[in-house]
Amino acid sequence: MLNEFKAIIDPKRLPNRRKYLHYYIVGLVDSEGCFSISIKKQNNAKFGWAIDPVFHVTQKKEHRQILELLKAVFKCGRIIPKPGQENIALQYIVDARRNLMEKIIPFFKKHKPIIKWKEFEIFAKVVEALEKGEHKDVNSFKKLILQIYEASNERKHQLNEVLSEIDRRWMSASETIRRAP
Amino acid sequence: MLNEFKAIIDPKRLPNRRKYLHYYIVGLVDSEGCFSISIKKQNNAKFGWAIDPVFHVTQKKEHRQILELLKAVFKCGRIIPKPGQENIALQYIVDARRNLMEKIIPFFKKHKPIIKWKEFEIFAKVVEALEKGEHKDVNSFKKLILQIYEASNERKHQLNEVLSEIDRRWMSASETIRRAP
Repeated sequence: MLNEFKAIIDPKRLPNRRKYLHYYIVGLVDSEGCFSISIKKQNNAKFGWAIDPVFHVTQKKEHRQILELLKAVFKCGRIIPKPGQENIALQYIVDARRNLMEKIIPFFKKHKPIIKWKEFEIFAKVVEALEKGEHKDVNSFKKLILQIYEASNERKHQLNEVLSEIDRRWMSASETIRRAP
Repeated sequence: MLNEFKAIIDPKRLPNRRKYLHYYIVGLVDSEGCFSISIKKQNNAKFGWAIDPVFHVTQKKEHRQILELLKAVFKCGRIIPKPGQENIALQYIVDARRNLMEKIIPFFKKHKPIIKWKEFEIFAKVVEALEKGEHKDVNSFKKLILQIYEASNERKHQLNEVLSEIDRRWMSASETIRRAP
């Protein structure tokens, strides 16, 4: 029995092996989890935009236990009222890049989502690219942005808007450098 | 690798053992599955009501594969457009009592839902009671109805309405019997 989570859930109600619990979590995440990448306007960012990867899982308020279980299994993240549905739903959220790199991504590389595999693949790619600092070079940054929009373009900002702002920032930065001496 | 489902999903995208896939399914069902028991008005039923247990799992249309996988694992059931959301969602449905008794209930007794355990417990209890014919005796039938409403009373028909119709039917049947000789 999985006694290690007994403070959260009666061990009799859990699968009897950790490995089984891991696959249970994949099924749950494939339904109510999200490997989200948002592109946010951010003036102090080098190219005017921030790429913001967040892993989250939503549950009705009365099932907080299951989110506490996720937090205990992944040993990271936090639980917050779901933005926009504060009275009825909760969200388990992991957004710190170190935790995504060291905990979330390795877990789902080992235990693969069946439904959300594409969503997860691009998520892992983007987080790894950010980790390597690829967002600091204008061409790599634009390539990343293109990949993100290719995966899903249901986004607040149009791709053209994002790319032209990157170019504007980059050109104005280059000009400053040329003028510097 | 789980090659037996290769006609539905690339085995590389599945867990590598059947047992793992089973726990994946529990996680999925704990999110998007439902152990539903409806109470339906049915004039030709002995007490005027039918108890109708149905196991179903909902997915967006584009994830039909996952419902096909469930159908293959449980070796029963069917996939239909989700009533009321025909254009966007599908439902995997098992409603034949034999399949519920022999396939669905034993599966979830072995691989227990963590979130929906209460919902499943009453579901199993009701299906087993129907199997034993308990709905044919007025007192057992009323007891069943009470248990179902205790588990959830968000229902089309009020408990009072159901119980009084049962009594009406039962009394009128008894009268017929008394008058018969």
